[in-house]
Amino acid sequence: MTHVTATPTVTALASSLPPGMVVTDPDIVGGYRQDRAFDPQAGTPLALIRPHTTDQVQTVVRWCATHRVPVITRGAGTSLSGGSTAVDGAVMICTEKMRELRIDTATRTAVVQPGLFNSEVKAAAAAAGLWYPPDPSSFEICSIGGNVATNAGGLCCVKYGVTTDYVLALEVVLADGRAVALGGNRLKDSAGLSLTKLFVGSEGVLGIITEVTLRLLPPQPPAATVVAGFADVDAACAAVLAVTAEMRPAMLEFMDGVAINAVEDHLRMGLDRTAGAMLVAQSDAVGPAAAAEVEIITRAFTAHGAAEVFATDDAAEGEAFTAARRMAIPALERTGSLLLEDVGVPLPALPTLIDGIAAIADRQRVTISVIAHAGDGNTHPLIVFDPEDADEHQRAEVAFGAVMDLAIGLGGTITGEHGVGRLKKAWLPDQVGPDVMELTAVIKNALDPDGLFNPGVML
Amino acid sequence: MTHVTATPTVTALASSLPPGMVVTDPDIVGGYRQDRAFDPQAGTPLALIRPHTTDQVQTVVRWCATHRVPVITRGAGTSLSGGSTAVDGAVMICTEKMRELRIDTATRTAVVQPGLFNSEVKAAAAAAGLWYPPDPSSFEICSIGGNVATNAGGLCCVKYGVTTDYVLALEVVLADGRAVALGGNRLKDSAGLSLTKLFVGSEGVLGIITEVTLRLLPPQPPAATVVAGFADVDAACAAVLAVTAEMRPAMLEFMDGVAINAVEDHLRMGLDRTAGAMLVAQSDAVGPAAAAEVEIITRAFTAHGAAEVFATDDAAEGEAFTAARRMAIPALERTGSLLLEDVGVPLPALPTLIDGIAAIADRQRVTISVIAHAGDGNTHPLIVFDPEDADEHQRAEVAFGAVMDLAIGLGGTITGEHGVGRLKKAWLPDQVGPDVMELTAVIKNALDPDGLFNPGVML
Repeated sequence: MTHVTATPTVTALASSLPPGMVVTDPDIVGGYRQDRAFDPQAGTPLALIRPHTTDQVQTVVRWCATHRVPVITRGAGTSLSGGSTAVDGAVMICTEKMRELRIDTATRTAVVQPGLFNSEVKAAAAAAGLWYPPDPSSFEICSIGGNVATNAGGLCCVKYGVTTDYVLALEVVLADGRAVALGGNRLKDSAGLSLTKLFVGSEGVLGIITEVTLRLLPPQPPAATVVAGFADVDAACAAVLAVTAEMRPAMLEFMDGVAINAVEDHLRMGLDRTAGAMLVAQSDAVGPAAAAEVEIITRAFTAHGAAEVFATDDAAEGEAFTAARRMAIPALERTGSLLLEDVGVPLPALPTLIDGIAAIADRQRVTISVIAHAGDGNTHPLIVFDPEDADEHQRAEVAFGAVMDLAIGLGGTITGEHGVGRLKKAWLPDQVGPDVMELTAVIKNALDPDGLFNPGVML
Repeated sequence: MTHVTATPTVTALASSLPPGMVVTDPDIVGGYRQDRAFDPQAGTPLALIRPHTTDQVQTVVRWCATHRVPVITRGAGTSLSGGSTAVDGAVMICTEKMRELRIDTATRTAVVQPGLFNSEVKAAAAAAGLWYPPDPSSFEICSIGGNVATNAGGLCCVKYGVTTDYVLALEVVLADGRAVALGGNRLKDSAGLSLTKLFVGSEGVLGIITEVTLRLLPPQPPAATVVAGFADVDAACAAVLAVTAEMRPAMLEFMDGVAINAVEDHLRMGLDRTAGAMLVAQSDAVGPAAAAEVEIITRAFTAHGAAEVFATDDAAEGEAFTAARRMAIPALERTGSLLLEDVGVPLPALPTLIDGIAAIADRQRVTISVIAHAGDGNTHPLIVFDPEDADEHQRAEVAFGAVMDLAIGLGGTITGEHGVGRLKKAWLPDQVGPDVMELTAVIKNALDPDGLFNPGVML
């Protein structure tokens, strides 16, 4: 299908949607071709459609099914693995205008359209005296639909789990245009297959998520924050294991020396530039339990050689350190182009992973800075390269693959929370094996026999 | 296929398994025909096979696939919805001899074979200083494999979630005999479709679960227990909503007057026989938070007319009331045969559900006692009937269906934690609708095209 022959049919689709909803203006469409993976091979979609309602999504999918036009679903476009990169000749459905939300305090649930930012869901829950825990670092700019599509995580997961743990129900538009309601606003439901959970993390390849029912919790108690610098990565990793052996921290984040310095260049908040690694831990226990947890963390940090342990009950002080950790990616982006990894390993393998990443950096002569949700073994190695230097770019790409190979070899995953997308697809078979790939394809083909949804992702 | 022609081929299967593993002795096989649903129409399996290893399960499934013999998987046979009832001519695989377990404290996981009792997994976790939360009332006699197959719940779910929230990885034998490993011992994993979660709650229709990796938590803090009697069901339901509006109890259980009296007949522990309903709540908060939660519960109970509120920090006293609640089903079983319901509704609909159940009991002239995991809206109406009285039995069956119809009408589920099995299959389409039934069938057919696994369940 070429643009020339396709345009008339898009016009036909446009007539069954509100005026102006089907956008073909190349300047506007061009802004939606790439996501945060900045894939230079991103295609050019036939049209960009920003529906408001499930009905409108169904209209688009039915038209696409009839004309065998692929559909790329995009939320806020913050995918780091190319999960919402455009494909030539596809229709791109962007959910950014699907922004309805209602909170039900009696069932402690939020029913939301996919286009809201994670931060907006959090804020609405907070306004109702409730809490939506999952907190990707990009929470202010990533969509809740994308969070569900990738089973996104964040900083609180070490204690509070990931997105799927909070999804009670979904409305999904299938490849033939039907909208189905899966699950309900009940904490317990064993009726039929767990289809809701199947669609969480399905990265747009099985259907389009048009409504999400989320479980909310009572507000998180105020957290105490404990911060320390360590001489090297191994000491910090040993401290991580010492903490998690005794308690469940509400947060346990790691930055290596490169990240510390990049953040300090940017924020000038007095981080120890000489430290080889830094940990930021939080306890949200209440009363004497809070003091006991802070004591466990402090003891573990000190026992593993922390020069100075800083502990605070002050929320603003604690948030400053969390923000510093979140700042690592943007701060490192100022030093070069980044390839962002998302590899995870069983916790005891964390030091081996980080040491192995340093060896890969040496071998490929690139800088790799490691930041991590250390408490759950999920790391974000950031491969820094000069995009003008073709050889270095090439070596960075080799390192990108080598880090995933390393994680797989350690019994880990190529993606803890970002999804496979297009960037990591080639490594998925190595992680899960041919039988699971075949099972995946069997389900994909059963639900989307014409391969309409997000072609090139995952499979 | 009849027994006469089939027996020789079972002999062939027997030769590829350890001696004596294929059992055809009718006396032994007969003990495995029914589960706790006591379906009088249970069939007679061709053979009973109690494998020790995944390999042996694969051998059986390959033979069954070749000969188109259906496979019923049975754990401890405690299904209340006929999920493991035998079918004529099927091979029954019972997992009771698959009893290996290892705990990994570093990753805080348990890797278990399916045949262990829930209580054994809990005990092994406790011995390692950890906690496996899900706690079906049958925890001492139900298998962990069955828990996963039904996405079982229990008393702690109101705060700690259900089985699926604790399943990180599965090993599953597929319909062609391949064994696949899904997920891993990582808290976060976004690589590929959420196949692990799809198999949780799949009731043996997609594959046979041969190994489970469970997430464990640090030990539960000691719980305080608050108990009160109420004049009637509506007052108790109002108290439930008042509690959950302010906090997340670790347990919030309900018994109606019939259940109270049946338990008191049995235990003679001094329960208030005049009460129309009783609530048993627990808080496992720590330090001052514990006292604050007990205060919230006590205030809510008193505000809704509780005559006397009994609160205790004593674990043994608390456990006595939990045990009383667990005793309700066996105590009522002494008064007649039971049809056990498992309907759930969004929490605000709880009083409407329980009132409606009373109306159904009146209309059908049967006793229906309601016990409930009230904090999450999951009720177990127990329909008591005299099995010798054919007319009453018939009216009990009508009531059984009417209760499910009522729950569906209230936006609820026909099963919160027991599964659909064979008994509730006819109501599933009314709950989820034809599109979800079709989606379910599409996935079933994709994974098990010959319909080998647990025919007659769910679909």
